[in-house]
Amino acid sequence: MKPSIPKGTRDFSPQEMVKRNYIFDIIRKVYLLHGYQPIETPAMENSETLMGKYGEEGDRLIFKILNSGDFMDGVQAEATDSKSLVKHISEKALRYDLTVPFARYVVQHRNDITFPFKRYQIQPVWRADRPQKGRYREFYQCDADVIGSDSLLNEVELVQIIDEVFKELGVPVIIKINNRKILQGIAEAIGAPDKMIVIAVGIDKLEKIGREGVENGWRDGGLTEDQIRRLGNFFLQSGDYRFKSDLELHPVIPTGRGYNQTKNDVNTIRRENKSLDNEIEILNQGIGEMDYLNNYIHTYNEELSSKIRFDVSLARGLNYYTGTIIEVKIDTSKCASQFTSSICGGGRYDDLTGIFGLSDVSGVGISFGADRIYDVMEELKLFPENVSASTKVLLINFGEKEAQYCLKVLRDLHVAGISAELYPDDKKLNKQFEYADKRNIPYVVSIGQSEMERGVAKIKNMASGEQKEVSVNELKAHIA
Amino acid sequence: MKPSIPKGTRDFSPQEMVKRNYIFDIIRKVYLLHGYQPIETPAMENSETLMGKYGEEGDRLIFKILNSGDFMDGVQAEATDSKSLVKHISEKALRYDLTVPFARYVVQHRNDITFPFKRYQIQPVWRADRPQKGRYREFYQCDADVIGSDSLLNEVELVQIIDEVFKELGVPVIIKINNRKILQGIAEAIGAPDKMIVIAVGIDKLEKIGREGVENGWRDGGLTEDQIRRLGNFFLQSGDYRFKSDLELHPVIPTGRGYNQTKNDVNTIRRENKSLDNEIEILNQGIGEMDYLNNYIHTYNEELSSKIRFDVSLARGLNYYTGTIIEVKIDTSKCASQFTSSICGGGRYDDLTGIFGLSDVSGVGISFGADRIYDVMEELKLFPENVSASTKVLLINFGEKEAQYCLKVLRDLHVAGISAELYPDDKKLNKQFEYADKRNIPYVVSIGQSEMERGVAKIKNMASGEQKEVSVNELKAHIA
Repeated sequence: MKPSIPKGTRDFSPQEMVKRNYIFDIIRKVYLLHGYQPIETPAMENSETLMGKYGEEGDRLIFKILNSGDFMDGVQAEATDSKSLVKHISEKALRYDLTVPFARYVVQHRNDITFPFKRYQIQPVWRADRPQKGRYREFYQCDADVIGSDSLLNEVELVQIIDEVFKELGVPVIIKINNRKILQGIAEAIGAPDKMIVIAVGIDKLEKIGREGVENGWRDGGLTEDQIRRLGNFFLQSGDYRFKSDLELHPVIPTGRGYNQTKNDVNTIRRENKSLDNEIEILNQGIGEMDYLNNYIHTYNEELSSKIRFDVSLARGLNYYTGTIIEVKIDTSKCASQFTSSICGGGRYDDLTGIFGLSDVSGVGISFGADRIYDVMEELKLFPENVSASTKVLLINFGEKEAQYCLKVLRDLHVAGISAELYPDDKKLNKQFEYADKRNIPYVVSIGQSEMERGVAKIKNMASGEQKEVSVNELKAHIA
Repeated sequence: MKPSIPKGTRDFSPQEMVKRNYIFDIIRKVYLLHGYQPIETPAMENSETLMGKYGEEGDRLIFKILNSGDFMDGVQAEATDSKSLVKHISEKALRYDLTVPFARYVVQHRNDITFPFKRYQIQPVWRADRPQKGRYREFYQCDADVIGSDSLLNEVELVQIIDEVFKELGVPVIIKINNRKILQGIAEAIGAPDKMIVIAVGIDKLEKIGREGVENGWRDGGLTEDQIRRLGNFFLQSGDYRFKSDLELHPVIPTGRGYNQTKNDVNTIRRENKSLDNEIEILNQGIGEMDYLNNYIHTYNEELSSKIRFDVSLARGLNYYTGTIIEVKIDTSKCASQFTSSICGGGRYDDLTGIFGLSDVSGVGISFGADRIYDVMEELKLFPENVSASTKVLLINFGEKEAQYCLKVLRDLHVAGISAELYPDDKKLNKQFEYADKRNIPYVVSIGQSEMERGVAKIKNMASGEQKEVSVNELKAHIA
């Protein structure tokens, strides 16, 4: 039997772990700096908590856990097809994302929680997706959410967190921001208030399928010819649906402050709204929120590293968003990345806890896709070299007497906080040096019979090849 | 619907997370100091990797994952009972411990691994055990293993690691050590070489069930009256099976070095062996290994915090151990703990990877039970007070203008590495102070209209109640 692991899952070697932890540590540090607190929820939830929360496809992709014991006991003989059987033999399922378990957590523990509740959560999730390059069946999400506060200052903070994380990781990104209220307002303006998602999905696909494709999609989605024509007033520019780049959202911001001046057509939308017989309230709300964000983000930090782009075409897949939506992509103008998919995203949801019986609690959150960020950083070689360093010192094992002596030396190094190991067997020297080499251990220390007698140690810098003899007592001073 | 989670699983609140991370961080730090490297394996393994590795009860307690999609497609109609059905509808299962997945990992990646391979792994495992106080269906294991080295220096190091971890956590423990070769040798000496586990399990239960109970257990396990009588030569003391406390394993160690002088009957066993017609080789090997350990542990560190007890009655449940076995319990002579169960354990296994097709690779490892350690530390109130501290500074929100000003102050604090947050809404002051209080935020900073104009901030120490006014520019110097 040749050992293997399930499709779409991965083992992580020490080299990979160290790099993954580098990413997690930075995200965690920034979350904590901004006052987000950690929680964890179980890998398995009751099926009723998860089912029906991610649409029909989501339900299919949730991993179900077989009831333990004699799971068929008492099951009717007629339940032999998967669909009717599953209810009888499975009551639990693996977490599909961190947002729904978080909503469940908030409702379940609402009496113990101090609101506004700022929490972060870094845990794996599982999806029975078809495995392919860059898409796994087990992967980590790194979420931060604030629940119980309407204030747009939370959005300001989350954008700032995204900027800080990617700045520290060295990944150049574009942070796209939109507001579902603008999309909803446009839908209302053309008399199709229930078609917000249809409109957004179309706009979102413009680059891929072109104007005709978008319009066909809208037609299939139930928009009339007149409604499609009227969408042009909001989106149409030089014969195509795209942003009118001659207008700026916030022209009072001077250029040259380290972030890119954002040009888009929010003002056009504002003007179109004003020209309507009945101005659409929610559209103005959405534009107002965008203005606020654009203003305050720069109040906090005038030197954002990321490009901020207020992008009215941004849609996001999830249904529960109701206000701000955020999506982060690699800034390919600054690096040679092949990654086009989103590496971080989020938004505001006004009633996520409602499904668990606690209504009127607004929340806003973001989620970093650690696995994709890892892949990008590997592609762009962004991991610092020293991130792979493990043990600092290997002590050579020359035999029982020397090993016994080295145990005391080892202890000294450990007490000084230097990670060090004594090779456990008295194998041939070249074998021991090869071990240090493969493990990337930077210093090898040899204390043989003669060195023992003189109270000295030979220390070799494995990178430079340089070797010197030092007093055993001063050994630790020579470890950089 | 009232939200809940599956029996035996837990949510972890921020307060609990911080304490749990305190434990994990210490274990991780000590592992790294000694050169162990992290790996992770997937939560789900192929069923064939796990099944049959933990005995019949283990197989029952493994959580199985239902195949995704139409899992009943192609299943014969006659497969309607749980036992025959499970093979058709489930191919994956949740990890039951970290040791078997590690053995699978080593075999699968043997060509990429530098041996001896020192790895640590901190991940949850799942068991469908009946939930009860202190026993969970999802819990963390924190394992360290060295694979590919016979040297007893590895055992020396692992005992040292146990001592360091519990010293740093402040938990007083007894580290019990035995060697399966001694138990095996005794079994051979009485002519029952296949009864090692039977003998060990009996001795292990002596305190609970008394001499008669032990002997009945041996009888049930297939030992003859003569064999039971002869076991007395090795174990019997003042009418009961226990250690002869007038002998010391290593009498050359002077007393008063910070660890407790270990008294036991290894020398008796040695003597009994010598009196046999044919001296049992493996018994002498086991005794020799115990001698070596006792000697070298103290060479590395003369000031161990834990009591080391070489305990010939120590058995351990797992079948795969072949040499040293280790078990750690609370030292109730030093604290008022009610915990009698083991909080850490491990041992040497000579052929664990053999089941996956790689033989003759010896390994040795330990595992900390983080959940039990957590419970003990709560019971004994051992968590440092500052471990619950979260955000350092809360900035009061007095309204839009003040908030805008505070964003810059907030930025300054963050740049200085001080975790700080601005209350997102301009709620009533007492509400905001209550938030700081409940969140255990030590400093509250108020900058209202008047303070803004004068460039000052009021800073309140929430513990002492003391309040002072300082220049905004010097604010960070006043955060301890």
